[in-house]
Amino acid sequence: MSTPIDFFFDFSSPYSYIASTQIQALADKHGRGINWNPILLGVIFKSTNGAPLTDMGMKGEYSKRDFLRSATFCGVPYQHPDVFPQNVVNASRATLWLQWKFPVKANAWIHACFKAIFVDNRNLSDPSVLAELAQELDIPPAQLAEGIQDASIKDGLKARNDLALARGVFGAPFFFVDGEPFWGNDRLPQIDRWLGSGPFLPQQP
Amino acid sequence: MSTPIDFFFDFSSPYSYIASTQIQALADKHGRGINWNPILLGVIFKSTNGAPLTDMGMKGEYSKRDFLRSATFCGVPYQHPDVFPQNVVNASRATLWLQWKFPVKANAWIHACFKAIFVDNRNLSDPSVLAELAQELDIPPAQLAEGIQDASIKDGLKARNDLALARGVFGAPFFFVDGEPFWGNDRLPQIDRWLGSGPFLPQQP
Repeated sequence: MSTPIDFFFDFSSPYSYIASTQIQALADKHGRGINWNPILLGVIFKSTNGAPLTDMGMKGEYSKRDFLRSATFCGVPYQHPDVFPQNVVNASRATLWLQWKFPVKANAWIHACFKAIFVDNRNLSDPSVLAELAQELDIPPAQLAEGIQDASIKDGLKARNDLALARGVFGAPFFFVDGEPFWGNDRLPQIDRWLGSGPFLPQQP
Repeated sequence: MSTPIDFFFDFSSPYSYIASTQIQALADKHGRGINWNPILLGVIFKSTNGAPLTDMGMKGEYSKRDFLRSATFCGVPYQHPDVFPQNVVNASRATLWLQWKFPVKANAWIHACFKAIFVDNRNLSDPSVLAELAQELDIPPAQLAEGIQDASIKDGLKARNDLALARGVFGAPFFFVDGEPFWGNDRLPQIDRWLGSGPFLPQQP
C-alpha cells in the first residue's frame, strides 16, 4: 500500500505550521507520499460555525502559550506574528499554481510561506512579501502574480475547500491516512502507529 | 520540588476519562503527587461560551471516532455511553465528600465512576447506580447519599469550579504543573518532558 497521506493545512494556522515541519519525516519513515492541500479555514468556519482559536477568550490566551510550547516541544522555532490571522488566499492560490506549473518548487514554497509567518513575522497578505518569497526561491514573481489571478486557480482553491468540507474537514491541520481522519498536530503519534503497525481500530462503517 | 500536579476533570468528559487512566503512572514516574479536582464543564461553559464537543456538527462526528481511537491508542477500553453527556453533579460531590471523610477511597471512587460511564455504559445521574458503586467499594451508600447533600460539599464543588475558572480552566482534562497550564489528554507527552528534563519554555510573565 502506498496511498499518499492527505494533508490539509491553512497557512495562517500555527498548528498547521508545526505539522508541516513534521509530516515529511513521518511520511518518509513509512514510505508514503503526501498530498499537500492548502485550504482556507475562514471559508470552512462559515460552514461549520467555527472560529479562530485566538478569538476564544480564555482558550485564546492559553493557545498563544501552547503554540510556542508545542513548537518548542517539536524542536522548531516559533514567533507569534504581529498580524494574526493573516489573509492567505494569495499564498494558497500560489501553492496551487506552483503544484500545476512548477511542481518541483511547490513544497519549498509551502515551507517558505509558513516560515515567513511563524518564524520571520512577515505578512503574507502583502503582495510584495509574496514577490520577495518567490525571488528567494527562483520563481519568476511576475509569472506567479499572474498565475494566482488565473480563473482555474481560483476555482481550484474553491474546489479544494469544498472537497475538504465534503470529507469532514472542520479544522487544520487535518489528515487522512487510508481514509482514516486525524485532526491536529497532536495526532501525529497516532498516525505514526497507524502507519507503522497498521490500523488499531476497525474501519469506519 | 515535589509540588503535586493539579488535575481538573469532568466525569462526563471522554478525554478526562482517558487522562485519568494515564496520569498516575506519569506522576509516579516523576515522583509527583496529584490533586484530583472534579469540575463541571457545564458550569464552566456558561462562563466561557463553550459547548460539548459532540454537539459540534462535523467536529462532533469526528470526536466520537477520536474518543475510541485515542483510548485504544492509550491501551484502555472505551464504549461511548448511551446517555451522553451525563449529569455528574452527584458523582462529583461524592468525590469531594470522600476526599474529606474517606480519603483512602477517593481515588478508587474516581476510577470507578469513569469506568461506569465509559466502559460499562452505566448512567451516573441515576442515584441507584451511585449506591451500587459505593457498595462495590465498601463505602456506606446511605452515608454517601447524605454526604452529597451536605451544604459544605455543595459549596465546595462550586468553589472548585470558581477556582478552576479563575485559573483559566476552559475545558477538561486540564493540568497545572508547577503553574504551567496544559489542556487535553494529548498534552501528557509535553507534561512528561516538562517533569523529566525541566521546563522547556521560560515561565509565563
